[in-house]
Amino acid sequence: MRKIPVKTASAEYPVYVGFGLFPLLTRRIALKSGRRVFVLTSPEIWALWGKRFLAAFPRGAQPTTLFLPAGEPYKRLAQVERLAGEMAAAGADRSGLLIAFGGGIVGDLGGFLAAIYMRGIEYVQAPTTLLAQVDSSVGGKTGVNLAAGKNLIGSFHHPLAVFADIDVLQTLPERELRAGLYESVKAGIIRDAALFRFMERNAEAILRREPAALERVIAASIRMKAEVVGIDERESGLRMILNFGHTLGHAIEAATGYRRLLHGEAIAWGMLAALRIARKRGTVSAGEAERMERTIAAYGPTPEFRASVDRLMAAAGRDKKNRAGSRRFVLPRGIGDAVVVEDVTDAEMEDTTRAILATARL
Amino acid sequence: MRKIPVKTASAEYPVYVGFGLFPLLTRRIALKSGRRVFVLTSPEIWALWGKRFLAAFPRGAQPTTLFLPAGEPYKRLAQVERLAGEMAAAGADRSGLLIAFGGGIVGDLGGFLAAIYMRGIEYVQAPTTLLAQVDSSVGGKTGVNLAAGKNLIGSFHHPLAVFADIDVLQTLPERELRAGLYESVKAGIIRDAALFRFMERNAEAILRREPAALERVIAASIRMKAEVVGIDERESGLRMILNFGHTLGHAIEAATGYRRLLHGEAIAWGMLAALRIARKRGTVSAGEAERMERTIAAYGPTPEFRASVDRLMAAAGRDKKNRAGSRRFVLPRGIGDAVVVEDVTDAEMEDTTRAILATARL
Repeated sequence: MRKIPVKTASAEYPVYVGFGLFPLLTRRIALKSGRRVFVLTSPEIWALWGKRFLAAFPRGAQPTTLFLPAGEPYKRLAQVERLAGEMAAAGADRSGLLIAFGGGIVGDLGGFLAAIYMRGIEYVQAPTTLLAQVDSSVGGKTGVNLAAGKNLIGSFHHPLAVFADIDVLQTLPERELRAGLYESVKAGIIRDAALFRFMERNAEAILRREPAALERVIAASIRMKAEVVGIDERESGLRMILNFGHTLGHAIEAATGYRRLLHGEAIAWGMLAALRIARKRGTVSAGEAERMERTIAAYGPTPEFRASVDRLMAAAGRDKKNRAGSRRFVLPRGIGDAVVVEDVTDAEMEDTTRAILATARL
Repeated sequence: MRKIPVKTASAEYPVYVGFGLFPLLTRRIALKSGRRVFVLTSPEIWALWGKRFLAAFPRGAQPTTLFLPAGEPYKRLAQVERLAGEMAAAGADRSGLLIAFGGGIVGDLGGFLAAIYMRGIEYVQAPTTLLAQVDSSVGGKTGVNLAAGKNLIGSFHHPLAVFADIDVLQTLPERELRAGLYESVKAGIIRDAALFRFMERNAEAILRREPAALERVIAASIRMKAEVVGIDERESGLRMILNFGHTLGHAIEAATGYRRLLHGEAIAWGMLAALRIARKRGTVSAGEAERMERTIAAYGPTPEFRASVDRLMAAAGRDKKNRAGSRRFVLPRGIGDAVVVEDVTDAEMEDTTRAILATARL
């Protein structure tokens, strides 16, 4: 087991990465104070892991289970309201503890529920997808979607701890594993050249889910993210590099109605788009760009999709990460090094969008 | 104009109390950065004051108006979602500014909307009721109701500034003025003996809305609250004294469906209930208790209501301010001095509930 510290301006907590972590979670957090514990999970995860999860709690201290149906359409305030109502009916007060046991949506919505229930209760992240383990469970961003866009409602609310249990990834569908690995490739490209090289050389072992290889990748990805949010919790500077691949990635998700691609897959396309701009600008060498493209491809195939250039351009314009009309992009300068630029022109954007569509179109 | 500083662990901002403050608001805050400004208000307030409010903004920098219908039933997440959607449709980004221009519900819900829109944007409180000016606009508590109870969802999110414009109180209905004044009497009883004496002696001038008298009462009430939240922002100790009158007050509101009494009126009954317990325990002298009771009465009449002892006892038990089954009460020890006790018994609670009902029953 590895313990990675997260230390930001407003919070300090550990991320545990390892195998069989449920007993640790129970011992370290849930039972410590004898308080009411709630577990928010999805029916699918609970069917697979619920028994083992509950077995970590003593008979007299079983948590109350709350369910969120799987899927982006349920990441909404209406579900937050329903769940808060269930907690109130079960007598949850300010001393209640929530455990978010599921993928990114359970983690984001669960963290937000904890952030606003009685103006904030404590919570724990127990992410069950690779994407949630290496990305969304760390850093304190919580939230839900509006009809107008993803994550437009939310809070910064850090968990007491994160328990990234690699055992749980045994039951993760292949496609979701790949989608999560793209985020680790991203971590390597923007800030950790050693992680990148490891992923470049060991794609086969990683995709076979060899425990040691997975642990190495997950721990390094989390360490990178913990470092970045430690330096810039509120995304006023450095944290923006985490959005590598997000400008076009978000646009693709929006243009395909959040149904065709998983988040990590859209980000993979977005990384390729950003790489093309960086290549054309000459800010990254052709050799390094090729290695990055090849490594992204090694964790594919990335599903194809259909969209028009106009639709993607419009969707990218609405991306909430852009302020005052400027088009913001994260561009790699080399392996393990990326920079945020604000001056990507419409022409560059259109060129890369066309190129991606030529590859991606069904 | 008076400027009262609020300084808590997480924020520092001024509360302005005075006359004709709209131009100040515009100059100091809204126009400073040239950003998008949204005004959340109620149709009633806007009909009375909208023109004068807008006149404070230059032609080219008019704010976008958002409406919240009046009444407790609209203080819900569904309205937050609708308003956030309108902001997104109008292109609000993280640099947007929200002005909450209305009573306590507009302030609480508006502050919460600002707290969670894109994980937090800045906002300003421009309270238009006395209750909102002396109580809810200061201290950073924001939120909405659940079906299961009031303010069960919320955030701590401080405004950039509070503008308590006394002119606006000219159009405040008489009953709402009285309901707000109860909160000022509360401020006097729990921590400001000079304010109490002023209100004891000048009820007539205050109820006639004499400007100087109102300004004195409002400024002193805000100063008291600012001091308390400066010492204990998150209500882990001292801030609890602000809940004087709330144990039975909340129960009365719940038992009467939040329809019959205004919040301040329920608190007035609740203060009388707490005074009775303090009297019986001998923690306050009969003479001082009588002066407090007389002063509460001077700002009445407090509307009668109908409820059963059982109903009120049950509702008080569910009050979120009680932890782990203990019955918490704020009891005055004298004029300008109150203490939080955790050991009020069911018998004491029942006795005072019966006594209040005997006076209050229709």
